[in-house]
Amino acid sequence: MFRQLGLIGCGLMGGSFALALRRHALVRRVVGYSKSPSTTERAKRMGVIDVAAESALLAVSGSDIVLIAVPVAASETTFRAIRDLIDPGVLVMDVGSTKRDVVDAARRALKDRVPSFVPAHPIAGKEVAGIEHADAGLYAGRQVILTPIARTRPELVQKATDVWAAIGAQVLKMSPENHDAAFAAVSHLPHLLAFAYFSAIARQPAGRDFLSLAGPGFRDFTRIAASDPAVWRDILLANREEVIKQSQRFRHTLDAFEHVMRSGNAEALEDLIRGASDERAQWTMNTRR
Amino acid sequence: MFRQLGLIGCGLMGGSFALALRRHALVRRVVGYSKSPSTTERAKRMGVIDVAAESALLAVSGSDIVLIAVPVAASETTFRAIRDLIDPGVLVMDVGSTKRDVVDAARRALKDRVPSFVPAHPIAGKEVAGIEHADAGLYAGRQVILTPIARTRPELVQKATDVWAAIGAQVLKMSPENHDAAFAAVSHLPHLLAFAYFSAIARQPAGRDFLSLAGPGFRDFTRIAASDPAVWRDILLANREEVIKQSQRFRHTLDAFEHVMRSGNAEALEDLIRGASDERAQWTMNTRR
Repeated sequence: MFRQLGLIGCGLMGGSFALALRRHALVRRVVGYSKSPSTTERAKRMGVIDVAAESALLAVSGSDIVLIAVPVAASETTFRAIRDLIDPGVLVMDVGSTKRDVVDAARRALKDRVPSFVPAHPIAGKEVAGIEHADAGLYAGRQVILTPIARTRPELVQKATDVWAAIGAQVLKMSPENHDAAFAAVSHLPHLLAFAYFSAIARQPAGRDFLSLAGPGFRDFTRIAASDPAVWRDILLANREEVIKQSQRFRHTLDAFEHVMRSGNAEALEDLIRGASDERAQWTMNTRR
Repeated sequence: MFRQLGLIGCGLMGGSFALALRRHALVRRVVGYSKSPSTTERAKRMGVIDVAAESALLAVSGSDIVLIAVPVAASETTFRAIRDLIDPGVLVMDVGSTKRDVVDAARRALKDRVPSFVPAHPIAGKEVAGIEHADAGLYAGRQVILTPIARTRPELVQKATDVWAAIGAQVLKMSPENHDAAFAAVSHLPHLLAFAYFSAIARQPAGRDFLSLAGPGFRDFTRIAASDPAVWRDILLANREEVIKQSQRFRHTLDAFEHVMRSGNAEALEDLIRGASDERAQWTMNTRR
């Protein structure tokens, strides 16, 4: 049981974490800070936070657990703002979708307080942003990746593991580098492709007519193209080397498909499709049963 | 009310059409033919068809409505097989996802009987194939595109419109050319991209580990990658010019995204993402309310 959660960034991710801790009676009090006062007010009215803090630093004051849930690019400023009030026992986490850049920012900004920071990436989200969509069940059954570094305090890694497990998440640990390579492949590239694909369709002369004919396959394929622009701008920039590396692999495979289409080789095309189709049919999302 | 449905191809699409006609009491008897006798047997046991025919021609004998629900590449052979028993009043339809190639095949194979053929493309499906997944509600609320040509008998186009509407579908008409251009954009290209993307991820050295970390965004983005290889082989080959044209547009847009990522221009990247995100958030699938 935590005494006080300092929530920095009262959006979908942060708000859902606060609600989940409340639902499981893991925290007595939630103090929240948001860049926009109207968001903080809304979070208070919704019962997500108890008290609105006037600054990130004031949200940390008196907190034994701190969640930084701001766009990845704002991490370093946030670390600098709260550094002075991070005592050794305080568990500080983030929820960013990239980890190397956040860990680098923490090293630079937190300096001797970096052992308190346990980098976290919950594999959860919605295509709608904002505190109004916060959901106490958002993390239940989802995976959460922790990417501690050599200097991270082991007892805080344990505390982080326990709190995510207590709200129903499945906790994995890996290095920030392995994390970023993996998520470039299974999350960041699909978002980039979905953004590019949807733009390409919508911007052509007959785009409107085409969109009116699209069916359920299109709907699911493009669902992530509705994701938050500010969040994804930061992710795609922070992890661009890995994302572009994965995009190149993808383009090579697409070349291979188009090559057999052009050559009219039906058997080779069917083999290529079957390679994807059989494996995708067997794949299931790794969620806690 | 039809006297007899001749069903050629007892798979997901054909089986679902037969079940829908039965549910709405639109047909007295269903005679089915499938290349594989065990499939026809199964369809009979499931109550999808009343009688198993020994050939496509025998399925047409005595039928006043015929549905050809075979892979697109098998259309021409099927037309040739049934040509002699297509009397002027018989409504013949297909369910193929491409229309120019099917119309060309019908012109060649049906000759003077081509006015009886009303090309149809119901925008419905599942990522599982086969009669065991047939579903009387598959077409309810979905769009069905009819692509009649100048020679198609107007009263049969009306009959086709009525029967699809009676099972809950929304009927649109357009030329085979416009159909194929539109579906290259909103259906065939997404399938190609999903097949290529899934292959590219699965085939790299760390592919298995990556797949174990993938979340709900990945799940939805790749759902169509599990689609039937034989069906999609035919679609991608039949419509390859339009699909490759759309793929080129997509690659240009992807280039633009990667260019701003490489240059580190956060504002330009956010603008590109927002262009897709805002429009995708507003888009809704065109279904009958």
